[in-house]
Amino acid sequence: MGRRSEILRRATEVFERQGVKQTSIEDIARAVGIKREAVYYYFKGRREILAEIILPQSHSLLIGLRNISQSSRPFADKLRDAIQNHLQSFNPSYLEMTVALREDHFFGTDQKFTELRRVWTQYSDLWTAMIADGQASGEFRDGHNPKFIAYAILGMCNWLSRWFDPEKETPIEEIIDSYFLFALQGLENREQS
Amino acid sequence: MGRRSEILRRATEVFERQGVKQTSIEDIARAVGIKREAVYYYFKGRREILAEIILPQSHSLLIGLRNISQSSRPFADKLRDAIQNHLQSFNPSYLEMTVALREDHFFGTDQKFTELRRVWTQYSDLWTAMIADGQASGEFRDGHNPKFIAYAILGMCNWLSRWFDPEKETPIEEIIDSYFLFALQGLENREQS
Repeated sequence: MGRRSEILRRATEVFERQGVKQTSIEDIARAVGIKREAVYYYFKGRREILAEIILPQSHSLLIGLRNISQSSRPFADKLRDAIQNHLQSFNPSYLEMTVALREDHFFGTDQKFTELRRVWTQYSDLWTAMIADGQASGEFRDGHNPKFIAYAILGMCNWLSRWFDPEKETPIEEIIDSYFLFALQGLENREQS
Repeated sequence: MGRRSEILRRATEVFERQGVKQTSIEDIARAVGIKREAVYYYFKGRREILAEIILPQSHSLLIGLRNISQSSRPFADKLRDAIQNHLQSFNPSYLEMTVALREDHFFGTDQKFTELRRVWTQYSDLWTAMIADGQASGEFRDGHNPKFIAYAILGMCNWLSRWFDPEKETPIEEIIDSYFLFALQGLENREQS
């Protein structure tokens, strides 16, 4: 692992443990076993480190969802894959998702955070469109505002950042199954099925 | 409004606007139009102010849910009331809920935060028990881990702290209706219905 990646990895751990706002560059340097100056050689500051941790994860969520929503499979399958795409990122790279979601980092106006907001807006919009398309197809029941439902599903998934501990909890696959079943049954158009 | 309540009210607004961790006692004092020292006359510091904002809201959620879960009505009705009890607190006192939920404040070890954690644990446990009882009654489908479902519903509701804006959005009642319908249909035991 290069020095730069190691700083990112250790920073993620420290952020997860004590919260982003309570973490200083000094804390990160100590976790890596280097001097503060060595951290500043690679990064302008804490927010740049944070953005570099969250951005790749966010991009890959968006790419995953795009592929899923462009397929021509039934909406039940798409829903399953979309929940899996989202929740699976809690598994190996759990810390990144926790750091990304547990606190609200979307206040910033600097370039990386503007990009982060853009990615998350695209991602939520894509979810909303998928629910709306599922309603239009007759597979999902009509009457719900698709945005509310998209945010409900994202909310139930994202809340894992507050309670799910991959070391102690059930495997994530069990939660994926359960949340898919709950959301699918919640959305299904019973007149059709 | 007494000075003390005014400090709490203004602090809530500042916390909501710029995040708790970025708020100094100086910021709060400025919002009230008093000196820092006058804030310290009433409160030991930022965390004490935060706890005083969140605690009453949390207690009232817990009391509300206790009353609902002790009634002998059908579980569908209890589910509706429980979602309403939770989401309605986003309405008039929206800022408190946002401040309570948007960031993870449950790190602290001081007495007020220990109490806060205790209240939220009781509250989540009560939700879990209500889902489990609904399953045992045959009204809700079996097979789900009741804790996962309780946390799914809390997650979808709590996520409003990230996107819902009572000034711009639909009335909260519409979201309560939609989330209740989604969760109820998601949970219903179809063999019985």
